[in-house]
Amino acid sequence: MGQKSAKISGVKIRDEFWSPIQDLVMEEMLPYQADVLEDKADVTEKSHAVQNLRIAAGETKGEYHGLVFQDSDLAKWLEAVAYALNVKPIPNLEKKVDEIIDLIGRAQQADGYLNTYFTVKEPERKWQNLQECHELYCSGHMIEAAIAYYEATGKDKFLNIMRRNADLICSKFGPPESGKERGIPGHQEIELALLRLHEITGEKSYLETAQYFLDERGREPDFFMEETEKRDWKHFGMDPANREYAQNHLPAKEQAHAVGHSVRGIYMYSAMAKLAAETGDEEWLNACRALWENITGKRMYITGGLGSTVAGEAFTIDYDLPNDTIYAETCASIAMVFFARYMLEIEPKGKYGDIMELQLYNGALSGMQLDGKRFFYVNPLEVVPGVSGVLHGFKHVKPQRPEWYACACCPPNLARLITSLGQYAWGENKDTVFNHLYLGGRADLELAQIGCETNYPWDGSIKYTVTPKQGRNFKLAIRIPGWCNQYKIKIKDKEYESEEIGGYMYIQREWSPDDIVEVKLHMEPKRIYANSMVRAAAGCVALQRGPIVYCLEEVDNHPNLAALRLPRTSKLKAIQHNGITVLEADGLRLEAEAALYSDVPPKTQPVTLRAVPYYYWGNRKPGGMRVWIQEG
Amino acid sequence: MGQKSAKISGVKIRDEFWSPIQDLVMEEMLPYQADVLEDKADVTEKSHAVQNLRIAAGETKGEYHGLVFQDSDLAKWLEAVAYALNVKPIPNLEKKVDEIIDLIGRAQQADGYLNTYFTVKEPERKWQNLQECHELYCSGHMIEAAIAYYEATGKDKFLNIMRRNADLICSKFGPPESGKERGIPGHQEIELALLRLHEITGEKSYLETAQYFLDERGREPDFFMEETEKRDWKHFGMDPANREYAQNHLPAKEQAHAVGHSVRGIYMYSAMAKLAAETGDEEWLNACRALWENITGKRMYITGGLGSTVAGEAFTIDYDLPNDTIYAETCASIAMVFFARYMLEIEPKGKYGDIMELQLYNGALSGMQLDGKRFFYVNPLEVVPGVSGVLHGFKHVKPQRPEWYACACCPPNLARLITSLGQYAWGENKDTVFNHLYLGGRADLELAQIGCETNYPWDGSIKYTVTPKQGRNFKLAIRIPGWCNQYKIKIKDKEYESEEIGGYMYIQREWSPDDIVEVKLHMEPKRIYANSMVRAAAGCVALQRGPIVYCLEEVDNHPNLAALRLPRTSKLKAIQHNGITVLEADGLRLEAEAALYSDVPPKTQPVTLRAVPYYYWGNRKPGGMRVWIQEG
Repeated sequence: MGQKSAKISGVKIRDEFWSPIQDLVMEEMLPYQADVLEDKADVTEKSHAVQNLRIAAGETKGEYHGLVFQDSDLAKWLEAVAYALNVKPIPNLEKKVDEIIDLIGRAQQADGYLNTYFTVKEPERKWQNLQECHELYCSGHMIEAAIAYYEATGKDKFLNIMRRNADLICSKFGPPESGKERGIPGHQEIELALLRLHEITGEKSYLETAQYFLDERGREPDFFMEETEKRDWKHFGMDPANREYAQNHLPAKEQAHAVGHSVRGIYMYSAMAKLAAETGDEEWLNACRALWENITGKRMYITGGLGSTVAGEAFTIDYDLPNDTIYAETCASIAMVFFARYMLEIEPKGKYGDIMELQLYNGALSGMQLDGKRFFYVNPLEVVPGVSGVLHGFKHVKPQRPEWYACACCPPNLARLITSLGQYAWGENKDTVFNHLYLGGRADLELAQIGCETNYPWDGSIKYTVTPKQGRNFKLAIRIPGWCNQYKIKIKDKEYESEEIGGYMYIQREWSPDDIVEVKLHMEPKRIYANSMVRAAAGCVALQRGPIVYCLEEVDNHPNLAALRLPRTSKLKAIQHNGITVLEADGLRLEAEAALYSDVPPKTQPVTLRAVPYYYWGNRKPGGMRVWIQEG
Repeated sequence: MGQKSAKISGVKIRDEFWSPIQDLVMEEMLPYQADVLEDKADVTEKSHAVQNLRIAAGETKGEYHGLVFQDSDLAKWLEAVAYALNVKPIPNLEKKVDEIIDLIGRAQQADGYLNTYFTVKEPERKWQNLQECHELYCSGHMIEAAIAYYEATGKDKFLNIMRRNADLICSKFGPPESGKERGIPGHQEIELALLRLHEITGEKSYLETAQYFLDERGREPDFFMEETEKRDWKHFGMDPANREYAQNHLPAKEQAHAVGHSVRGIYMYSAMAKLAAETGDEEWLNACRALWENITGKRMYITGGLGSTVAGEAFTIDYDLPNDTIYAETCASIAMVFFARYMLEIEPKGKYGDIMELQLYNGALSGMQLDGKRFFYVNPLEVVPGVSGVLHGFKHVKPQRPEWYACACCPPNLARLITSLGQYAWGENKDTVFNHLYLGGRADLELAQIGCETNYPWDGSIKYTVTPKQGRNFKLAIRIPGWCNQYKIKIKDKEYESEEIGGYMYIQREWSPDDIVEVKLHMEPKRIYANSMVRAAAGCVALQRGPIVYCLEEVDNHPNLAALRLPRTSKLKAIQHNGITVLEADGLRLEAEAALYSDVPPKTQPVTLRAVPYYYWGNRKPGGMRVWIQEG
């Protein structure tokens, strides 16, 4: 039996780790991104997203500026602000959003069409280049923003605007036998948006069109080829023959390997999972399971990073996980949180929650600088001064977070993830409350109100205060993380033992108000080994404690991190330092010899290795970084 | 005091290792390459080089075909055949060469101009694009071929043709104050050719023009920029602003780091060394020494491979030596033999001979399949099935030798190297005979006739039979290889001890006819460690025995070579097998676990590791290959 994620409005986060980050997002990132979107920030890359809307609404003159999918930056920001309004009132941002929504309404065309690029720049080319021009992608993000704003504020103006847009899409695209046009999105996103819109409106055509887009993907004859042949123009000049890039190589239901552009792929898999949950269709479910296993079992970095190559920002082949030429886009890690969420809704298994947690604390969070002002698009596992960001093949791997991108997908995507964390932490079905993530705060669910106190991820103690709301008999299911080999549960100070099922500990009892459940996850630093098929990690270990993956930085360990070795017998020590936990161990540094090659092994000197959380890297002095450490 | 390389005609090779390869070159490669050049071979890439000459001579109609420097493929083949004629008479090839020389004469223009591309295709664009169009490069190779043919046969027709061409070049390019045009070659080669032409003709203008080209390189204002501005056309579309690519970033005399296109660079350094030897100019000598140290101390693969990136087929930065995205063009290793030769002519130091030997037995020889029919351009140190030759960033790294290239520089370059080996083995000055390489056979020098018997590189015993020719008192200087930690020398069965000076053992005595000198180099297999700055070799060892570097191949060791480990305590065994020496050792294979990451180290099973000579790889079944082996 599945379960449903909590409503964001029902979860109040008061968490030592995440609340300061949420505050940063709300107090720094969102106002800063508003300035960027309104061209008021001092950044190299002008956004122009709001100005594009004004031009589209006919309220100012000017040229469209930005990428063809510039609207989506604004959409993700709107969505993030909407989520933030659940965390606390931010009247000035809410006012700004209302103004922008009004502007969106004025920019929308009479038939519901909404896309500033085509409205302003190429009105005669609407809907002719789904592969490259991302009208459906932009609509998808606007729909998600409208849902979030409706849920946060109860105001339905934006939702109604986007329903008109969704209605246009649903009336236009569908099976030709129903008199509609054939079509699939170039960048998947509309599928998930329509499924969510169906969920809150109950309008069946949204579900049907989402299902149509998913069903149609990968069908013969190739839609993008057909579409390209009909046109005498291209936008980016993409090759429709590269079908794997677009996950268009096989019917989506038959896909079992994660290929192509990683963000697009995982957005699609997320929609497939949501569709499987809605319809109970076993074929979709099996495809989702196969894709999940392929990603997490063969194509994911230890940090959660997804996408091994800059060419197409894409997955490559099983076990091909280079650390230094990696792509691992922040958005792909964010997308994986969505995929995990919808897999959990189908079947609450710990493995999905584990990956959600891994992404949040590592691959996604590493995308932002700790001051919320600079962002990684690419999240490497190895940075080498003079190589990363410089040499051919490494130019995309920036050794420091840049301030803003022409293609600014990641920063607002992170903002919407972080402001909506609560919904990922909790879920329920008719007889069970699920805790997927350990976040301090309070969840107000159908079955119960539950308070949670913890200093996670630095400490493995979590204390729940459970107050039943309807009946007293229900289950509390707590995820026992995959990284945890040993744990204890106490209820009202008494040890509690029960079977762990699929990664969750189910506690069933007659609950009384303010029942206390204490969980103690034994959290020691440990060495992680990669599968021996991962050649980029051969001879190496990574360090992890709780959900946090660690890395060595030059600022702590001197230059040339490849010369460091962690002997097998060295004990790892966890040390509190400036509010985070760092790891230390006795290590060795190979001395630099004069000769390039020698039949004498390099001498070693003892050193103390210091590892910091992966998400924390790149926040001090620039320099090398390395997750996989030579062992032995 | 320097020394001069032996004349090819004076050295007869009868060597267990090299004679079969020379035979292969003469009996298979050269006839096969003749067929390719005459478009009679069944290969995908048509050469058209001879046909281009016929069209240029006005003897047939047709279109020019091939790269702008297609003439150089023919030139290198002509040079190789010329060297081969020193090894043994090959009447049919000599006849073919004479016919081609006649044709070259007819294709030459009245003023000495010789280049089929511009003669046939763009006559109005001669000499306008030195950066991209390589007229000087093609002339250089033709000059070297003409010298070789003259030296082998005494026939001077080709030499006279190329002297007319050289005279044209020398009258055209030079200091503007002498009424000549400013110019430098895009692809260096003419410099060395003119220096060699000066050497055999005594014509000073050849020396002066060579020196001019070297002096002018890297001077302000940038010649290629100026040249590009004067033209309204480009050939390849190169960017003249990429000055390092063309070694045009600093005056050549001031260059101390090997940068840019590796073959071009090393051809230039070779010419610089020859110029330093001719002129005794300390500045040129110091630049050569600095470049030599930079290459061999920081930018060379253990196999001798040169050039770390496909972008510009170029050197990158110190210690950046990736094994799998490597370039390491066969021609660069060949060029390094030339550089070593001319450094040896300046100062006979063992380190130069060591690198010459390393290249011959490894980085250069690996360029050819053992049947002489297929060739590597790129010589990787790691091949991974499904990655090498397939994925983005790896497409240039072919996992098997292809048959022929559109840019077919490497195959005939190898042919000319292998047929001219004798000149690299021996040298002399007024009182010393130098043996740089251990090749069985007979050298007829000024000071002595010396026979050499050996089963090198499989065995370290070398037996010399020395017969003085002029006076009886002279020195025999034998290179003691850098890889050799222990050796013995006997003269007429008596142990001989003397000081080793700069890597050579000098034996001075009153020689009698048929004096026997026996050298026994202790040749055990050993482990080689890279400098700890080389991150691509971190945690690994390479295996070497004598001058032969070894590698693991999948065909001997099963798939996934990155999962193999060589424990530090394992003994390396040398085993004779099918005429080569292979190495075996007790090793471990990490078992492939189900999980991608685990806190349990992978289990290991004992295996016997088998390593084959690096040059030998890729001659059996396709599969993975790896030079650097995980240790411990």
